[in-house]
This record gives sequence, structure tokens and C-alpha cells, in this order.
Amino acid sequence: MYGDIKLFSGTACPALAGAIAQYLGLPLGGRDIIKFPNENIFVRLHSSVRGKDVYVIQGTSAPVSDNLLELLITIQTLKLDSAARITAVIPYLAYARSDKKDQPRVPITARLVADMLEVAGADRYICMDLHAGQIQGFFSIPGDVLTAFHLLSEYFVQKRAALVDPVIVTADLGFAKKGRNFAARLGASMAFIEKRRTGNDANAQAMTIIGEVDGRDVIIVDDEVDTGGSVTQAVEIVKNHGARDIYLSFVHPIFSPPAVERLGSLPIREIVTTDTVAVPPAKQLPNLTVLSVAPLLGEVIRRAHEGRSVGERFNE
Amino acid sequence: MYGDIKLFSGTACPALAGAIAQYLGLPLGGRDIIKFPNENIFVRLHSSVRGKDVYVIQGTSAPVSDNLLELLITIQTLKLDSAARITAVIPYLAYARSDKKDQPRVPITARLVADMLEVAGADRYICMDLHAGQIQGFFSIPGDVLTAFHLLSEYFVQKRAALVDPVIVTADLGFAKKGRNFAARLGASMAFIEKRRTGNDANAQAMTIIGEVDGRDVIIVDDEVDTGGSVTQAVEIVKNHGARDIYLSFVHPIFSPPAVERLGSLPIREIVTTDTVAVPPAKQLPNLTVLSVAPLLGEVIRRAHEGRSVGERFNE
Amino acid sequence: MYGDIKLFSGTACPALAGAIAQYLGLPLGGRDIIKFPNENIFVRLHSSVRGKDVYVIQGTSAPVSDNLLELLITIQTLKLDSAARITAVIPYLAYARSDKKDQPRVPITARLVADMLEVAGADRYICMDLHAGQIQGFFSIPGDVLTAFHLLSEYFVQKRAALVDPVIVTADLGFAKKGRNFAARLGASMAFIEKRRTGNDANAQAMTIIGEVDGRDVIIVDDEVDTGGSVTQAVEIVKNHGARDIYLSFVHPIFSPPAVERLGSLPIREIVTTDTVAVPPAKQLPNLTVLSVAPLLGEVIRRAHEGRSVGERFNE
Amino acid sequence: MYGDIKLFSGTACPALAGAIAQYLGLPLGGRDIIKFPNENIFVRLHSSVRGKDVYVIQGTSAPVSDNLLELLITIQTLKLDSAARITAVIPYLAYARSDKKDQPRVPITARLVADMLEVAGADRYICMDLHAGQIQGFFSIPGDVLTAFHLLSEYFVQKRAALVDPVIVTADLGFAKKGRNFAARLGASMAFIEKRRTGNDANAQAMTIIGEVDGRDVIIVDDEVDTGGSVTQAVEIVKNHGARDIYLSFVHPIFSPPAVERLGSLPIREIVTTDTVAVPPAKQLPNLTVLSVAPLLGEVIRRAHEGRSVGERFNE
Amino acid sequence: MYGDIKLFSGTACPALAGAIAQYLGLPLGGRDIIKFPNENIFVRLHSSVRGKDVYVIQGTSAPVSDNLLELLITIQTLKLDSAARITAVIPYLAYARSDKKDQPRVPITARLVADMLEVAGADRYICMDLHAGQIQGFFSIPGDVLTAFHLLSEYFVQKRAALVDPVIVTADLGFAKKGRNFAARLGASMAFIEKRRTGNDANAQAMTIIGEVDGRDVIIVDDEVDTGGSVTQAVEIVKNHGARDIYLSFVHPIFSPPAVERLGSLPIREIVTTDTVAVPPAKQLPNLTVLSVAPLLGEVIRRAHEGRSVGERFNE
Amino acid sequence: MYGDIKLFSGTACPALAGAIAQYLGLPLGGRDIIKFPNENIFVRLHSSVRGKDVYVIQGTSAPVSDNLLELLITIQTLKLDSAARITAVIPYLAYARSDKKDQPRVPITARLVADMLEVAGADRYICMDLHAGQIQGFFSIPGDVLTAFHLLSEYFVQKRAALVDPVIVTADLGFAKKGRNFAARLGASMAFIEKRRTGNDANAQAMTIIGEVDGRDVIIVDDEVDTGGSVTQAVEIVKNHGARDIYLSFVHPIFSPPAVERLGSLPIREIVTTDTVAVPPAKQLPNLTVLSVAPLLGEVIRRAHEGRSVGERFNE
Repeated sequence: MYGDIKLFSGTACPALAGAIAQYLGLPLGGRDIIKFPNENIFVRLHSSVRGKDVYVIQGTSAPVSDNLLELLITIQTLKLDSAARITAVIPYLAYARSDKKDQPRVPITARLVADMLEVAGADRYICMDLHAGQIQGFFSIPGDVLTAFHLLSEYFVQKRAALVDPVIVTADLGFAKKGRNFAARLGASMAFIEKRRTGNDANAQAMTIIGEVDGRDVIIVDDEVDTGGSVTQAVEIVKNHGARDIYLSFVHPIFSPPAVERLGSLPIREIVTTDTVAVPPAKQLPNLTVLSVAPLLGEVIRRAHEGRSVGERFNE
Repeated sequence: MYGDIKLFSGTACPALAGAIAQYLGLPLGGRDIIKFPNENIFVRLHSSVRGKDVYVIQGTSAPVSDNLLELLITIQTLKLDSAARITAVIPYLAYARSDKKDQPRVPITARLVADMLEVAGADRYICMDLHAGQIQGFFSIPGDVLTAFHLLSEYFVQKRAALVDPVIVTADLGFAKKGRNFAARLGASMAFIEKRRTGNDANAQAMTIIGEVDGRDVIIVDDEVDTGGSVTQAVEIVKNHGARDIYLSFVHPIFSPPAVERLGSLPIREIVTTDTVAVPPAKQLPNLTVLSVAPLLGEVIRRAHEGRSVGERFNE
Repeated sequence: MYGDIKLFSGTACPALAGAIAQYLGLPLGGRDIIKFPNENIFVRLHSSVRGKDVYVIQGTSAPVSDNLLELLITIQTLKLDSAARITAVIPYLAYARSDKKDQPRVPITARLVADMLEVAGADRYICMDLHAGQIQGFFSIPGDVLTAFHLLSEYFVQKRAALVDPVIVTADLGFAKKGRNFAARLGASMAFIEKRRTGNDANAQAMTIIGEVDGRDVIIVDDEVDTGGSVTQAVEIVKNHGARDIYLSFVHPIFSPPAVERLGSLPIREIVTTDTVAVPPAKQLPNLTVLSVAPLLGEVIRRAHEGRSVGERFNE
Repeated sequence: MYGDIKLFSGTACPALAGAIAQYLGLPLGGRDIIKFPNENIFVRLHSSVRGKDVYVIQGTSAPVSDNLLELLITIQTLKLDSAARITAVIPYLAYARSDKKDQPRVPITARLVADMLEVAGADRYICMDLHAGQIQGFFSIPGDVLTAFHLLSEYFVQKRAALVDPVIVTADLGFAKKGRNFAARLGASMAFIEKRRTGNDANAQAMTIIGEVDGRDVIIVDDEVDTGGSVTQAVEIVKNHGARDIYLSFVHPIFSPPAVERLGSLPIREIVTTDTVAVPPAKQLPNLTVLSVAPLLGEVIRRAHEGRSVGERFNE
Repeated sequence: MYGDIKLFSGTACPALAGAIAQYLGLPLGGRDIIKFPNENIFVRLHSSVRGKDVYVIQGTSAPVSDNLLELLITIQTLKLDSAARITAVIPYLAYARSDKKDQPRVPITARLVADMLEVAGADRYICMDLHAGQIQGFFSIPGDVLTAFHLLSEYFVQKRAALVDPVIVTADLGFAKKGRNFAARLGASMAFIEKRRTGNDANAQAMTIIGEVDGRDVIIVDDEVDTGGSVTQAVEIVKNHGARDIYLSFVHPIFSPPAVERLGSLPIREIVTTDTVAVPPAKQLPNLTVLSVAPLLGEVIRRAHEGRSVGERFNE
Repeated sequence: MYGDIKLFSGTACPALAGAIAQYLGLPLGGRDIIKFPNENIFVRLHSSVRGKDVYVIQGTSAPVSDNLLELLITIQTLKLDSAARITAVIPYLAYARSDKKDQPRVPITARLVADMLEVAGADRYICMDLHAGQIQGFFSIPGDVLTAFHLLSEYFVQKRAALVDPVIVTADLGFAKKGRNFAARLGASMAFIEKRRTGNDANAQAMTIIGEVDGRDVIIVDDEVDTGGSVTQAVEIVKNHGARDIYLSFVHPIFSPPAVERLGSLPIREIVTTDTVAVPPAKQLPNLTVLSVAPLLGEVIRRAHEGRSVGERFNE
């Protein structure tokens, strides 16, 4: 209906793109992506995409600005070569937390990113675990927002028998509702960490834990780990309140400095995440388990191409 | 800079519009709004708005569809009469909870509403307490999203001395973060109600309370009360857990049936809300306190017209 | 070329939608359309429409605002689920008479409706007998505007032999040209009713009949009957000028109050209309004949889907 | 509010533009408009229009294509020079009769013209007596559609005493309603000419007159005279039915060949029109009276610039 | 993928359109293109294009304004009849030299033309040898810009053996780079003509030739010949500097007056051009060779329809 | 007319922004521009810009992607804060050389940049010396493209007396025309360097010089120096052909590696450029002269704000 399918990968997550291509039994399209000495990014496709149903796999992890522009330039190149339909497959969407004006005179960069993708020529998008589901409403093109939470929660369901009276803890109250879903899958109870500013000092914070963790195995869940600051606080407070083993589970391993140093020094039994962001060998801690989203993204690409339902199996 | 200011009111909230006009010392512009026997809505302005800086005050409470279309038609009328700038002032924005696809094959109606406001001709918007701040990103026009939480929390700060060991309770985990802010203003502690589906029956729910309410005064906070179902559950569970006096505080008194019957039968000491939605006399319970947002909206309109900062004083 | 065809019906005209589906030998797509207690309309599709060629059948008769919003929300839902092409099939388009500024400072609501359909995601539209053909120019998407006049005039051609010297009368000078076409099909003569305001009173009108009706069977033709006011005047004046039997023929039976009372009390031999608007049993006068447009709409949908010519057989 | 006013004239109607400028006491802006040997039209402004409120006066009479492109190019030139607001003043808008698809597979060129004016950069438009009022709905920018009917009807009101039992005749049923308004102003009666195709020959027509003209002075009214074919037929039939003196009144003197020959040979006492289209000396028949629309357009430009109401005095 | 292919021809270059149709083995679609007495252009398609992949072949040579509007109106007609995809095939694009503001307060008409093509409904475009390659960036739709330079240079390669020490001369420094490519294909050397204004008189020019032409065969190359002024100067100066035989080669034979008179009087051995612009018999000089671009355009249309690569064989 | 003027500077060229602010006697607006550990760029304005006429000064030199995104995010922030008009002042526009598809399947990134600036919210732009003037046509918003060539050529006019028979040389035939203008200002002659690929090796090039340089002072002119490769070749060939002193003049000192090393090792007497790109101290060669464009940009900003003509004094 949309011509033959064609996959392209940017330079941000070549391993994941390769795994998706393998899942689909398709080659990745040949292309040159060059950064000239003047830092201008240049894209050239090796063969024509006229009338094709094209999927570009490119995350927007670091180097964020380069990866984002590379994605936009690739999309325009495909459009100018008369692709029939262009889907941006973005395993990790940067700027998703800049999604509202929670103070005056700041941007809503996630909307700008959505606008740029559309103006470059994207017809659809596929993303994973956006910070807020509302970001779908930033696009006027349709898209699929998938979640890796089934993948992560299923992992813990498998080891449920070994867990002692597990409790799900969210480090951020904005994540409370998603944490509840995780807990329900596991038949676990919940606890919340509440942070409150104290006094006039902007950085002084009092932390409270609401709910029971004493003597229990704790799974701290979140959508991403950036510098690891919140997680560090969370581990400390649950430890202080008598937690038994501590697990950490989240979708996007951003791991901005000094995340790896922090995580490495904490008493966490296992860190369970996905490959939406490529973790370089130097950052692969011994207790890190990475589950691949390639089969999920691959299957959704196949169904999108064939015009079959995605939602019935993959959405949250 | 944008020509003289001119205010118009739709038919949804005439009392609030009148109070805003009085605050500003301006008359409301003359207009006919007629619903013909065939239910087509017709608008006619009594005088020209060429080159004017126009503010249309119209909420989208029930009758929702009529009020929304009336707003859109009024905006188009103003545009066709060559107004210089049109700001939609929408104290209560319907469909704000339809802001993401949390299941497959459903709309994001809040985005549709934003698109319709833009296509009708709105240049800016002013709203109050959207369900999610991300809805700002649904608009490509600029706007001001104000909050009545200072108004509501300040009311409780005034009666803080009389409250016994108060605890803020949110009936919905999605509201946990805003509840925390409310608690922080009052120096109160927090508790959460967690709902979880049980068994195969879609309606069977188990409720847990996380945090302490025994022997304390409880303030249940939310952004709106619709049919009152969640509030009823919340009151029952906190009562069962030994709460002392119960207060209820929220911005938008939607009061869809059977909200008034439910609220009237609950052991709530005081219900504190605002006039973003007009509460007809028949729905004014004896323990209902309505705080007016007119001074807030009036001041923001003045500042928007004069090109002065709004954010520095009014945003959350 | 556009994927498989899929039909959906809104809640405005389920009988007509069913008849169209039957004509095409296709099922109507499963969907929930719910009006919540807070009057927010919600749509959920039972199965995926990815890559499908979708036709949504929804008129915009009373309740007008609800039916219009339901249509727009359904279109957006289809778009967000990645339908390949969405055609809005609107047997009766509300606001079609608000199509020009015939006085200062009024809206052109028909243009607003067209804009809203486009911004919601419609790719095409199919309408019947718009008040003015120019409304096609309000859309920037293509569409088919069909007419039921052949259906209506053919009905009278069948009973031509029984008619005594028939004369076509239009109650509104704006409809004179279309009345002429009707007359030509029947080989009938014409007469016009001219209304003119008298004195300073806005409602005082003098009516004149231009042309001969004395001793003849009269067929009063129009595009719609709303409250029946014009028709009542027309019947009275042709009766006063000696008309023999009186027939009434029009496409859209809006029948806003007090149309049915008025029509019921008039000496009309037969009222011939169509099912573009559903007439509830209580409004079905004994002398009412309803011709179905289902085969016409069904055939046009089939041809549109198959990429075959519509115009050669169905346009006026 | 929009910066200083600035007038420009294209090459289509320099006399009318000059009269408007004189009415306003303003100079016409200096500009070169050149048609190169390769027929490319080139525009150069003599001085800057940054931040100005600019009015471009350019009709689209013959040479139609050149005049239309000249208008579009001038508008783009003004936009690129950062004019604050650009109003296209188009005394006669070509293609206004291509306003609907009255047969399959034809354009709606009036919509295309509206789209081109917008894409070139027009912010507003001012037109006179469009063939159908609905054309306003083709624009998404606001505009003023003025009418010269008051000017024309007032002229006949002045000589009303000298007219014998006058009757207004429209040559086209599509113009019946506007003819009625003209008649009402004069306290005159009406008659209509009905044309009907006969037999299989596309050109064979039967004409009937509906209403009384015998022994009366007849004023044939229309919005324009193009080749004069309809008028010729109308004069003949009213003459045959015993009309006394015949007058002809219309807004736009298109006068395409062989209009002047036809009009010159008909027994018309006086032809009353306006200067929306420039009539070259060779086409100025002795019985032609041309009323100027310059004061009307000039006053509307002034009011539009000053942000004062136009509608209250000038619309129909 | 885009439905069946369908070709249409405007009135600008019927011979070329016919040759393209013949190359493709396809008929040209039936259509009426009429210029009414009032100069309004009217288009009617003889059969439906619903769901078709349509190619409209229409150059924009003289009469430029008419040909351009005819193209735009035809495109809108196709769009309104629901064509699946519309490609404007424009062998010669007028206004391509109005591509930048090289002085203040002038238009960029080529951008306006691009915008008008898009707003009329074109989905793609195919052009030949634009004055500047950057004009592709004026479109937001994709397109193919082809070049006839291979055709022209190949012609000279064939007669290379007969040429004495050939040198490529460009009459305009802006064309230097393309001239170099021509030279490289032939293994010829280059020379440039430099013009410089002298003194205060805007028209006084000094001309210099940079490079060697003495005793050599000269091929003057350009993208078009308009009035022939530059070519005349170029021929004179190379003759004065001792050139042997002089050839002239260019893509677009605009031949605005007095081009033919000028070219006819110059000592040019052969003029080699293409049929992107139709040269009427009266302008066909005896030394004129016209190479047809029909096979090139035909092949590109075929490949575009079939979704195969164009670039690999046809771009410069 | 557009509210008060307000200047902001990004982080790319603070010295130039400061000099512009000083020229205008205005402060730079306070703002935070932060790059978070996750590389997301964040902007916060210190005070409101409602209704202001804002100019953002931000070049897009290295780090190119960051500087470009910073500019776009800043523009969106200004738009969301309801600035009345936003002008992007971009002394050096990256990607300007990606302005056409000179091979198949490549982007036109300059158009993408223009689109992104518009979608972010820019109302106007001010640039300097774009690689091709046609890039103005990539924007649909108006703008001013200024040139520093007067600044550079005037510098050489001042030292004209000391130059021996100067000749202007362009290293790139695409720059021939602009080189001619430079030469005309100086009363100098011209020479061109022609490069031609040789054999099958893509990198093997033959270079020729066309025109006389022997015994003359040579000024090599270009719009930018990137890695210095072309300049190096040019210096070598003119030296080999007997050039006397060699000067180098260009607008944008991109100086990508290894430009500085190359320039430092060449026998160039003086390198004359501007500050459109900030040259860090380590790259400031002893023979480098930097002329400031601050007065030029400052004056244009002032005139744009006041609605006065820019073109009459500053364009090429």
C-alpha cells in the first residue's frame, strides 16, 4: 500500500538498528553520513527511495544536538527523494522533559522537536516511553508511543518467587501512577519518596518516605536515569528505612556523568534497563542487565508497514 | 501597541465575565448570541473591533459542545471583523483530560480543541489549571496557563491554626506532585490513596491508603470534581482510617450528576472551590465556599494588554 | 490503492448509515461513542484502521453541536490511528446557510466548519445539496457534493400525468435558479414569491406572487424545511391565488419546532423529502413521503474508493 | 497602529487609483512595473514600506492574467520589504463566476485566486460586488466586500419621478434576490426572465418573462455586463412584451467583445454603471453614465487604516 | 502504488507533450482549455482522474501569464477531482531569473511561482535547467530538476573531430561554472567575457575577454537566449579577438523580440538548442538545430511513476 | 509600532553581540543558557518580552549543531512569552552551501534551516553574505541579507595607491560574478582559476589560470575560508604564474582544521576578514586583519526597528 519497506539507520544506535533489521530480515539501506570539518552534517543515500515506505532509526541521545540534526537532515533527504511515507523511529527522544512551562519564560522544547520533525518531512513517528504521554499531542502527525514497561516488569515477574515481600518505590511523585502499574503487575505494594524544599535555601531538601519498606526487597522504578542524583537519594533513604535488597529498573539509560560513578558505589543488587540508549562498554557496570527493545520495535515497524494493529499488543 | 482593549463574554459564565470587567473598569462589548430553532448558533457584534485587542471570556462547561462552538464562532467573527489580536480566555477548558492515548484507537481531544481554537483565529489563550501542564504544548500560539492553587492554599493557610495536624490527601496518584506543593505551602504532611484493579472484573478495585491520617484533619485536594466518585471513595477510606475533620479543595466545580447528591451526603466539613465554572443556586451546598478567580484573570488580561510580565506574579 | 474500505457511522443517522452499509454489502465498523456525565464525547474504535480507506457517515442535524463535535473527534481518532484516507460523509451539513457576511460583524460559520473538518484530519468530504454550491470552495480538500433533486424530481415525473398544469413555486428568490431546473425536468411553468419589508417595522412584510398559479397544481420546492415559516406563507399565498392541489418537495427535513405543527395544519396534499436527516416517528406526518439517499451515497462511496468517476452520473 | 498608510497602484485602473488617492489626500507610492521582452513582469518600489500599512489598488480586468500576476508580484514585493500590513484593493475580481463545481471535473478558480493572494502575502482584501457573497468564505484572511448598488439605486431614486410605473427585471434567475433589493429601494415591482434549454440542441433556448412589463419603464439590473449576450436577449423580450423605456444598470463594465456593438444597437435609453473597470474612450457609448466608486473605496481604506467601522455605513 | 498514470498537456508546448506521450506509449488525456471573451481561462477534463498518478505537461513560455495561470488552474482542477498525485512537468519555468533580491524592494518571483504551484495542489514538479540550482529549495514539495546539457554537449562531442582547437565561452560570469563542465566534457579550454559598467552612465559598459580565442572555434554556451543581446555582444567580441567558427548552444530558446533578427544577422555557424520552448516556424533560422528533450522527460516520468531512481542516470 | 526594542545574544559570538549592543546604546537582555549534563539546552529569560520587538544575535559557527539548536530554542522561548516580533540576527549561517541538489539523494539543508527558523517562531531574519543570494527565497518570512563586501573592498581602496597593478582572483568559478564587483570597485583587472577533474581518479585535478597575474599584486577573494584547501591551491598557482604580493579577502573566517596551519605557511601578505565568526586568539595569525560588522548590523537593526529603509544604504 505504501510501496516496499526500507530501513535506514542513523549513527546514534547502530547496534539496536542492526538488531531491528535482523528481526525483520531486512538489510539497512546504504547511506553516507559525514560530518565535514566545518561540522556541517551531510547525508547521501546510496539508492533511490521513490515510493518506498521508509523507517529511519535514530535515537537522540548524546551527542544530542548532532543526533537530532542528523535525524532531521536524513528525513528531509528522504522527502526530497520522493519517499512515499517516512517514519521516524526514535528509541529515545531527547528534550521530552521540556514539555511544559513550569516557570515563566522558558521553552517547551519537546514541542519544538515535534514541529521540526514534521517540517523536515516525517509522516509518522515511533517512540518509546515518553516522559509524559501528553507529548503525543505535540505532534499533528500520527505515531506510536510504545512502552518497555512490560519488558521490565515481566523480567521481575520471572524472579518474583525469589523476592521478599517486594515494594515498588518511585523516586519522583510525578511517576507515582506508572509505578502503581508496575506494582500491580508484580502484586507488590508501594511506597513513595516525597521531597520538599526547606527554609530559604533552594537546595536544602527534606525527604520523607511514605509507605513501608522495612525488611522488604525494594524495586526503584523510573523512566530514565540521567545523572543518577535522584536514584542515589532514593537508595539512601530506603536503605535507612531498613530495605532489604534493592533493585533499580528504568527504560532509558542516559547515564550522563557522573551517573556511572554514582551507580557503581551504591548497594544495588541489580540494575535492569533497555537498549533504547546505547551503553558503551566503559559504562557497563557488572550488575547491569540490558533487555533489548529490538523485537518490540521490529514487530511494530512490520505491523505499521502492513497496516495491521499495533495497539492491541504493544501499548501500555 | 495592539489597539484599544475590548472585552466580550460568551454565555457560559456571565457572572465571572462581569466580575472581570468590573475589576478592569471596562464594559463588556455588546453582542447577540442566538441559538436558532435549528440549533445553529449565531453571533453578531454590536460595534466594530477593527484593530482592537480583544479578549473573549467563555468557559466550556456544560452545555459543553454548545459552549465550545459558541467560543469558536465568536473568535471567527472577531477575526473576520479584523480584530488586531484575539485572546480566548477560557476559565475551564473541557476535554483537558483527553490529553493522551492511554489505550489504542482513542482521540487526543484536547489537541483537537487547541487546533480548532487556532483555526478559528485565536492569537493567544488564557486558561486556568489544566489537568496536565503539557497541554500548553498542544498550542502553537502562545498563552498563559494560570493556577488557582495559591488562592485555595492561601485560604487554608489563613485557617491553619485551627487545623489539627493536617494531612493532604490526593485521590489520584496522577495528582501526587501538585498535592505535595499544596502540602508544602501549609507545612502539612501527605498521604496517598492507591487504587488497584482486582481479579477479572473491570470494576472491582482494591483501595489502600499510603501514609498516616489517623486522628488528623484531612484536606483532600484535586483539580476538579466531576461526578464526585473519586472523592466519595477518598472520604470513605480516610474516615475508615480514623480521619478527624475532612475538607475538600479543588479548582473546577464541574459537578456533573450525581456530584451534588454525593457531596451532600458525605461528612465533609467544608468544600472550597472557585468560580471557573458557574455553580447554579440549586447546586450550592451549605458547606460550599467559592473563591473568585476574577481578580486574577482581570489582572492577567490587563498585563497581557499592556505588554507587562504575567509570569512574575501569577504562574505556579 | 488506498487500502481496504472501512465504514463507520456516528450517532446522528444510524438508519441511513445502515442502509448505506447494506447497499455496499459491508459491515459498519465497531466503535464506542460515549457522552460522559461531564458531556465530554469519547470515541474508541474496536479495531485498527491503519492504512484503510475510511468513510465516516455522520450528519449534523440536531443535536447540532454534539453531532458536529462527534464527527470531528471521530475523524481525529481515525487520523491518529493512521488511516490512509478519511472521507467525511455528511448527508446534512449544518451551518450551510451561514455562508456569507450579509451584514457587518457576523461569522461565516460554514467556512469555520470546513476548516475544522480539515484540521481534524479529513482528507475528503461527501455532502448533499448544500445551500449554495460555493461552499465547495470553502474546503481546500476535494469532495463530492451530490444532489437529491433528481430523486425528488423523478418522483414527480412518475406522477406527472396526474398533475393538472403544474407550476413550480419557490418560496425564496435565492432558490429561483434551482427551482427552474426542477421545472424544466417536469416541463412545468414557474412562479415566484417575492417578500419585501414594509415600513419601519422589521417584521412587517408584503408578499407578492409573480407568475400564474390559478387553477393549477403547485409544487413548492426548496432545499430544506426548517421551522416551516416560509412554507406556511407560501402555501397561504398560492392558495389565495387559486392554486389547486399543493405539493411540497425539499431535500433536508430539518423540522425544527414548530415545523411539524405547521405542516400538519396546512392543506398540502403530499410532502416529499429524503432521509438526509432522520425524521423520528413522532414527526412522520401521514402525507409525508421519504425517499432514501442511501443508494446514491453508497454508490458514490464505492466509486470514490475504487477511483472511478462520480461526476458522470451523480452531480447536478 | 499599523504604521503610516501608503497607497500603491498597479497598471489596471490608474484613473480610479488616482481618484482614490485624491479623495484621501495622499500620493500614490512610486514604483516601476515593467514587462520585459520575455513577458516576465517586474516590480520595484521607489522607497521603503517597512512597517507601513499598505493598500495596493489593482483590478483584474483585461489583460486578466497579466493584471492578476502583477497584483500577486506586487504583494510579494511589499511582503519581502517588511510591510506591516498589506491590503489588496481589487475593484473588479476576475474569476468570481468560477465559484463552484456546477459540472464534474472543473476548477473553482475563485478559490485558487483567493489562495494565491494569501500565499503572495496579502493580509486583507477589499473587493466590490462579488458575483456571490460566498466568495468571502474562500479567503481565510479578513476583508471588506463592498457594493455599488446603493450608488446605482440612488441614481434611479433621483430620477424616480420621471419613471413610468417602473419594473426591475433580472436577466438571470441567480440574480433574483439582489434585483428584489434594488426594486425595494425604488418602490418598483419586479419581473423575471426565465431561460430553459429546449430539445437536444445545447444552444436552443426558450425564454419566458414572468411578471408584468407592458407599458412600463424597465430597469434591467445585473452585477456585470460581459459580452452583452444576456442583456440583448433581455431587452428583446421586454420590448416584445410592451416595455416602455428601457434602462440598464450594473456594477462592472467588463465589455468583452462584442458587448459594445451589441449595446450600441439596442434601444436602451441609459446605461448606468461604475468605474470598477476602466472603460476606454472607444467603448464609451453616448448613453453611458459612469458613477465613480472612488469615494466609497477611499473612505473604506481610510476607515480600515484608522481601525474604524466600515460595515455601519457601506455594506449592503 | 499511485494508481494508473495519466498524462495531460496544456496549450504551451503541444508538440513536445505529444512526443512525450508517444515515447511512453500513452494517450494525452482529453480536456477542454478555453479562454472566454472576458479572458478567464477555463479547464474541463473529459474523464475522471480519481486516484490517478497525473502528469501535466505545460511550459511557461510566452504568453507567460496565460500559460502559468493555465497550469495552475489545471492543477487545481485535477486536485478537486481527487487525483492521487499531481506532478507539474514544466520544460521551461518562467521567472527563474527572479530568484534573489539583488537590489532593494524587488520580488523573488520564482519563489512566488513555487508557492503558487503548491497552493494549487501540485505534489511534485519536474523542470529542466533552472537558471540556478537553488530554485529547488524554493519548493517544499519534492521534484526533479533535469538538465539538457548532456544532450547538447554530446552533440558537440560527436562533431569534436571537426572543431579546431575549440574554446568554450560564457557570456555571463554567473554561468562560468556550468560552462566549465561543458568544456570538460569536450576537452576544450575556456574563456570568459567580463562586462563592467563605466562612468556614470548606467548603460555604458566596457567588455573584456579573459582567456584565448584567437584562431580557435568558439562555442558560446548559456542556459537560455532571451532577446539575444548578450549573445550579440559575445559574438562581436570573440570575432574581434580572432575567433574562427562560432557556435551557439543553450537549452531554452525563449527568442523574445528581437532575438531572431539579431541571431539571423550574426556570423554564427550553428545554433544548437532544444524544444523546451516551442519555436514557431517563423523563428526557425536556417542554422538552427533543435534537439528534443522528449525522451528524457518521458523516461523520467516513467521512472517517477514506477518509483525507480531518476537521479542515477539523468541529473547533472 | 512593534513595542520597545530588546536585544538578546546567544553564546556563539558574544563579542560581536556586545559590540552591536554598544553601537545601539542598548543592554543585552538577561538570560540563562544552560547545557545540562544530558546535553539538553535550556533557555530562561530574566524578564518579560511581551509585546517587544526582539533581536536575537546568534551565529551558527562551531559547535554548529549546538549553536543552531540554541538559536531555535531561544526563538521558541521568545514566541511563547508573546514577543511581538522576533528577528533572528545570524552573522554566519551554517549549511548555506547545502543549497541545491547537485547530485541525487542529498539534502538541501539550507532550506531545512530556513524552515526550522520559521517553525520555531522567527518573524524576520538578518544574515550576512550568504553563499548564494537565492537562499533568501528559501524563507517565506522577510529578511535582510547584508554584505560585508563594501567593508572589505573599501579597505583595499584605501591602500590602492600602494598596490602594483592589482588583479582580483577567484578560487571558485561560482564566485566569478562577485569577484568582478570587487574588481570594479578597485579598478582592478581579473583572473580566474579553473579546476578540472582528470582521468578516473576523483581527486586528480588539473588547474589552469585564465587571465594575467604575472608581476602583479593579487587579491584572492571568496565568501569564506573553511579548511583553506582552495586558497592554498590558489596561492600556489598564482605564485607559480609570477604573482607579486598576495592578499586574501573573505567575509566568514570559518577556519576549520587545518585552515590556520595552511594559511600560516602560505606567502600571503595580509588576510583581511570580518568578525561574523569569532576567531579565537589561538587562530589569530599575525597577518590577519579583522574588520567588524557590528556597526553595519547595529545600524540595520535600528532601521528595521524604526521602520526605515535598509536597502538604500546597505545591500550590495
